[in-house]
Formats: sequence, C-alpha cells, structure tokens
Amino acid sequence: MKIVIVGAYGTMGSYLANAFEKEHEVVRVGRQSGNIQVDITSPESIEAMYKKLGAFDALICTAGPTYVGPWKNLTDATFRKGVDGKMMGQINLVLIGQHYINPKGSFTLITGAVTHEPQRNFANASAANAAVEGFVKGAAIELEKGIRINAVSPGVIENSPQYFPFFPGEVPVTMQQLEYGFRKSVFGANTGQVIRLG
Amino acid sequence: MKIVIVGAYGTMGSYLANAFEKEHEVVRVGRQSGNIQVDITSPESIEAMYKKLGAFDALICTAGPTYVGPWKNLTDATFRKGVDGKMMGQINLVLIGQHYINPKGSFTLITGAVTHEPQRNFANASAANAAVEGFVKGAAIELEKGIRINAVSPGVIENSPQYFPFFPGEVPVTMQQLEYGFRKSVFGANTGQVIRLG
Repeated sequence: MKIVIVGAYGTMGSYLANAFEKEHEVVRVGRQSGNIQVDITSPESIEAMYKKLGAFDALICTAGPTYVGPWKNLTDATFRKGVDGKMMGQINLVLIGQHYINPKGSFTLITGAVTHEPQRNFANASAANAAVEGFVKGAAIELEKGIRINAVSPGVIENSPQYFPFFPGEVPVTMQQLEYGFRKSVFGANTGQVIRLG
Repeated sequence: MKIVIVGAYGTMGSYLANAFEKEHEVVRVGRQSGNIQVDITSPESIEAMYKKLGAFDALICTAGPTYVGPWKNLTDATFRKGVDGKMMGQINLVLIGQHYINPKGSFTLITGAVTHEPQRNFANASAANAAVEGFVKGAAIELEKGIRINAVSPGVIENSPQYFPFFPGEVPVTMQQLEYGFRKSVFGANTGQVIRLG
C-alpha cells in the first residue's frame, strides 16, 4: 500500500512513518522538510503536491496548526490560524485529494481530545477539531468509489511533554496507541468515524 | 431581560422574537431588515452592531449561512460560505460581544442535527455546526463574569417544509420545541452545552 503522510517530520508523523514503512511504501510530506512539501493552508500548494505524488492508497494527516494562547488574544485574526490550518487545510486535502486517491483508498485526519474536553488556551483547536470531525461525517456519505474517511482524536501524547502542563490530569496517549488508532482507520473498513484515543 | 436576536427576520428568529417579547425586551437584528442590521461575516459590522445596541443580557443567533449543494461543487471557495457565515460569524458574535454583554449574560448559537447525522448536500453545514459546538465547549470555560454560552441544535424544523426532502425520515422539530430549546439556554444556568432537539 502506498501511504502518504502529511506532517511526516512532526512528532506524530515521523513515528507513524517509521512504523508503517516496515510493511508499506511511505511517502513523507513536510511543510519545509523532505522532497515533497506542502503548505496545507494553500489549495494551490495541495494541488501541486498531489500532482507530484501520483496515485496513492491512503493519506494520513498529522499536520494541523491552531492558535494556542490566552482567551483574551482570541480574535477573528488569531482564530483564522486554526481555520485555515487544521480545519480547511485538512478539508482541502480531502476535497482535492479525492480526485487523486485510488478507489477504496482512505483519508485519515487528525483532531484531538479538546474537541470534547476543552482546556484553557485551546478554544481555537476545539473549534477546528470539531469542524474536521463534522466534515468527516458529512464527507463519508458523499465520497465515491469506496473511498473512506476517518479522524483520529488523541489526547496529549507521551512524546510531547511540553504540552503536559496544559492538560492537567490527562493520562498521555502512548505512541503505540496513536499508531493503533491510525491502523484502525487505514487498514480497517470503517468510514465516518472519530477514533478517540486515551 | 434585554434579549438580542440576530436573524430575527428569518423563520426561527421571528418565531422566537414573537415568543420572547411577551415577557422581555427583544431587539430584532436582521441582515437587511429592521433598524439594526448586521453582516455577521464582517467583524467590523458586528462591532458596529454592538455599539448601537448598548448593554444587553442575552444574545440569540439563528443566522447561519452555509453552502448547501452537491458534493462535487464543494471546494475551498464554496466551503468558505459556512466558514465565514455560520462558523466565524457566530464565533465573532461571541468574541466581540463578550465585551458588551452584561455580567451573567448568555450567548445562544445555532447549529443543527447534520453535525452528527449527516445528509447529502450538507457537508459544509456539518463542519460549520461542529465547529460552533466545539467553540461553545472551549468558550464556556474561558468566559468570565458568569457569562454563559450554549448551542441549540435542531433537526429540520416544521416551518421550513422546503427542506423536508433533504431530510428523509426525519421527524420535523416543532417551533415550540425550538422555543423551549432556546428557553433552556437563555433562562437556565447551563453553559457549554449543545441542546439537541428532535
């Protein structure tokens, strides 16, 4: 299976790329790293990425910029970081990528626990994540040729200890749990699901 | 109680305005109707609306444009209708309005059943609604001075029969159920809730 990982040089993406390349052809896509790059906030950049990639079987996205910071700094302008990044970036990966992915292929997007369990400083992520989860449900009944779509929603992950102070009392999700969540989407038969971890 | 209704000349807003004005001061805000108008896709227009309104106790929004149409027409451009309208329009009503609303005031936003029960043609609404619901949860733990925020999520409503064909088998929500949903948010003590109807 040819698996494209967008965000492949980040904490989650690099772990998944290493895990999946043992059995599959993995194509790593970064924002500023690697041979194939994409700026997910730009539909033109996404289209260019797909033209370079050629046909593929699964796309995993672990990239999703949002604004993290004090509520008092949240304005239309700061909120757009998550809108154009984690939300529309991932939605456009699907809207454009549906024309490039192989039949029976799958898209697996990244959301996060703050969708349902809010934390201070993360209202932008709560909204962007939720939007992606809503989109996943809406898209699952529209995509044709057996193409599937799911989201993986982890809590704070063990390899990102810098975020622990933002998530008091939350047991970190292990990298193996994260891998298994993506396995369930990529290699299973589900569609329109939000796979919650932790 | 001084209650502002944004979308007061639409099917839902006009019903709610008539129902609540029996016991409260209702200020009707329309997009192109009434003495006070707002274009919720413009933060500047929202700011100008609040300056005209003066202090108030509750804001209800029933306005929320989204793109409704075939999946094949869904692109970044068409998707932005719901992003800038139902999503950021309502989020900006809160981000800006928090500086104008009275202590212990409330915001009640509108989402819809397609967040969780998708229908063809409504993927943009699924995403925009979900974003608003995620924002409501994130905002509820950040708003100060006892200010509350909830969303009301109706299915197709009885007074909009033009939408019935899009919602096969869905029992229409009565206008009274809709009113009661908003009553729960405006006059109750809950915050961070999505009040599902039907």
